[in-house]
Amino acid sequence: MNAGHIQPSERVATVIAELKELFGERLAVGEAIRRQHANSLTFLDAQLPDAVVWPESTADVVAIVRQASALAVPLIAFGAGTSLEGHVNAPDGGIAVDFSRMNRVLQVRPDDLDCSVEAGVTRQRLNADLRDTGLFFPVDPGADHATLGGMAATGASGTTTVRYGSMRDNVLNVTVVLASGEVVKTAQRARKSSSGYDLTRLMVGSEGTLGLITELTVKLYGTPEHVIAAVVAFASIAGACRASTQAIQLGLNVARLELLDTPQIRAVNIRSKLALLEAPTLFVEFHGSLESCTKDLETFRAMAEAEGAQNLRAASDEDGRRQLWKARHDALWAVKSSWPGREALVTDVAVPLSHLAAAVEETVADIAAHGLIAPIVGHVGDGNFHAIVMFDPHDTSEAKTVEAFLDRLVERALRFEGTATGEHGIGQGKRRFLLREHGAGVDVMRTIKQALDPKGIFNPGKVI
Amino acid sequence: MNAGHIQPSERVATVIAELKELFGERLAVGEAIRRQHANSLTFLDAQLPDAVVWPESTADVVAIVRQASALAVPLIAFGAGTSLEGHVNAPDGGIAVDFSRMNRVLQVRPDDLDCSVEAGVTRQRLNADLRDTGLFFPVDPGADHATLGGMAATGASGTTTVRYGSMRDNVLNVTVVLASGEVVKTAQRARKSSSGYDLTRLMVGSEGTLGLITELTVKLYGTPEHVIAAVVAFASIAGACRASTQAIQLGLNVARLELLDTPQIRAVNIRSKLALLEAPTLFVEFHGSLESCTKDLETFRAMAEAEGAQNLRAASDEDGRRQLWKARHDALWAVKSSWPGREALVTDVAVPLSHLAAAVEETVADIAAHGLIAPIVGHVGDGNFHAIVMFDPHDTSEAKTVEAFLDRLVERALRFEGTATGEHGIGQGKRRFLLREHGAGVDVMRTIKQALDPKGIFNPGKVI
Repeated sequence: MNAGHIQPSERVATVIAELKELFGERLAVGEAIRRQHANSLTFLDAQLPDAVVWPESTADVVAIVRQASALAVPLIAFGAGTSLEGHVNAPDGGIAVDFSRMNRVLQVRPDDLDCSVEAGVTRQRLNADLRDTGLFFPVDPGADHATLGGMAATGASGTTTVRYGSMRDNVLNVTVVLASGEVVKTAQRARKSSSGYDLTRLMVGSEGTLGLITELTVKLYGTPEHVIAAVVAFASIAGACRASTQAIQLGLNVARLELLDTPQIRAVNIRSKLALLEAPTLFVEFHGSLESCTKDLETFRAMAEAEGAQNLRAASDEDGRRQLWKARHDALWAVKSSWPGREALVTDVAVPLSHLAAAVEETVADIAAHGLIAPIVGHVGDGNFHAIVMFDPHDTSEAKTVEAFLDRLVERALRFEGTATGEHGIGQGKRRFLLREHGAGVDVMRTIKQALDPKGIFNPGKVI
Repeated sequence: MNAGHIQPSERVATVIAELKELFGERLAVGEAIRRQHANSLTFLDAQLPDAVVWPESTADVVAIVRQASALAVPLIAFGAGTSLEGHVNAPDGGIAVDFSRMNRVLQVRPDDLDCSVEAGVTRQRLNADLRDTGLFFPVDPGADHATLGGMAATGASGTTTVRYGSMRDNVLNVTVVLASGEVVKTAQRARKSSSGYDLTRLMVGSEGTLGLITELTVKLYGTPEHVIAAVVAFASIAGACRASTQAIQLGLNVARLELLDTPQIRAVNIRSKLALLEAPTLFVEFHGSLESCTKDLETFRAMAEAEGAQNLRAASDEDGRRQLWKARHDALWAVKSSWPGREALVTDVAVPLSHLAAAVEETVADIAAHGLIAPIVGHVGDGNFHAIVMFDPHDTSEAKTVEAFLDRLVERALRFEGTATGEHGIGQGKRRFLLREHGAGVDVMRTIKQALDPKGIFNPGKVI
């Protein structure tokens, strides 16, 4: 830990004292609490904030921003701490703004297929609230406790993005507190608008570096009439990738389309006591009518068999679907618990569909060539896949091998006209790739950051 | 015309002379040419540029921007001149940059369902090029000669947006020349990315005020397996709106959903020699399989009949569909030719679906109460509708009535949490509404504009 954080600078101490008067028990400086709010899910070292504050309203957030802005003290937005690139670390100290008490579902509007929520509402809680309406919010980043504010900030997506889009596609507006303390609602609720610059999409994915999101309005969808899930093993990972891209190219009503490679299947077999064929495996889900799902499944089966697949198993009842998808749900946990003592570096590249098979094949060969442990799980319908590198944090030579692998992986994705991060964001962990991916675009991002947050109070050391 | 434009300032004259050396015949200063490049489609007065230049490459555009930027001379991007809010006017003079010679389809990638084009490619040309691939580009703003660069700049949408989204949803990246002369490609081609700020969506809809778009990559879609079109008349306009919103709420596979009100139907009956029942009428199109289209049509028929509809006519063959949709295609032309000597002010509000019926009903009553001629056509599946106000440009008292109507219409849309412009953009014509809709958000837009275009060379007098 940086000594500067044990003895906070006078400016930070002043702001903490001022906020303590305003927030009382809703501001804490104890180390345990601060440690809970520094990144702990990744290989990145924890960097603790000097204090944590719990606002309960947009007005509270304005008060926090005004105090912090006056003395140029960093503010780090904290949702549930489920981000994977060190987004909630506090490299320059400052104050973590924890949105967990801003957890009201403000309004559900079934007729408009949208709802407005405070930033701290979790996706699980929202969907529980929606259960009786016949509607659901589809974006599913895997972390059930992820907050909608945090998901908007990182531009999250997940297993259903292939059908329903990412946060960029599903946020209609955000209410954001700017460095000036001004409150801006980025748009109204019309389904489309050409009115001025798209501030909504500028804030979505800005990772807390341009302002603090306090409320947002998101799209909802009708629960599908019928759902069929299927699991099918392939002779080769390239064949699994080709079957995936064909399903998208043919326009099947795919709502989820996930790949687990052989090491990943082996890990879930052991950890979740399953008996899956140890081969590259696709997990797919079709949403639609009974007729369309049935037809899509048969088309998919034929395509899969042409790519050397066997033993396709399908289910449409909820229990059966849950059984089939269990391996996918347990994937990350199975990997983490299979190699105790090792830490996970979850990579996140995405490439155009036509390059998916080649990008995955090259990555598998790279993993083997360097003796890495790195099971692969992928949202392959979007061309996005994660190699989960399990490394020994105490082995400095392995750390270098992992870093070099990550570099090659990102270079490969960029060579295939892809991206360093499909859904996890830049945070701290991927900053060195931003320039390689965006070139002069980084100047534009930096100009925008400088113009909207001239003192650099919002999440310093992230993205830019 | 402003005398300052007849005798261009020394700065403009210098830049024109410099560009003349570089571009020769591809730079023109004749009044007829300049007049073709000033706005002529709307009630706004034409404001001519001092010259027109035709780049043939991104490098040409860089050269133009560098010269103009050095002397702070305005540059006005010109696609096909089909925008409706004075976007191509030159209130401060300057140089129109006509992209019509940047009209190459650079690459079509059927496996990735995308293609890259130069900014001057028209949507009609692109779809003609795509015909043999089984793919199409769906965004259809009505103007066949609209260029993809212009459509991206205005964040265009249209009849198919209810199914396929607007330009904001369909542009994967743009290549843009900034005020500094730097060339930025805003993203790679992965279907999703969380890498840095969303510069693509910042440029889409920026109306040529932040940079000049020279190339773009857009999503393509498979031609639907089956299409059914239907036309159905309603007893009331509110009933037609309610049937529309129900179709969306139920998740029918609606690909187009358009409303024409009674005056609009009367106009097309006369001008296109049709014999439609003169009543509020919905034009709908379903895309999907034969089964899903048939089922959707029957669901829609039942919903429509419950709202007092009658005489639903449907067709699935191309000729039959074209016949059914003729009234919709001819709508704007029919209105314009029905009142010769009058000019059209095409309004463009959009509201959340639950408020559509009320917003349209109030607007119809408002039109009647003020004796205006204003047939309505709407992309009602998106909650977007256009009252086409036909006014006498020589009648100053009517101009005031029209202006007051437009004010009330926008206020009504905002009261219903909607937008002043669903798809036409702000341009010159709607600048006075920007603050009302966005409040402090306009400060953010102005800050971004100032940061990225400090000399204000890009399309001055628009948006901000």
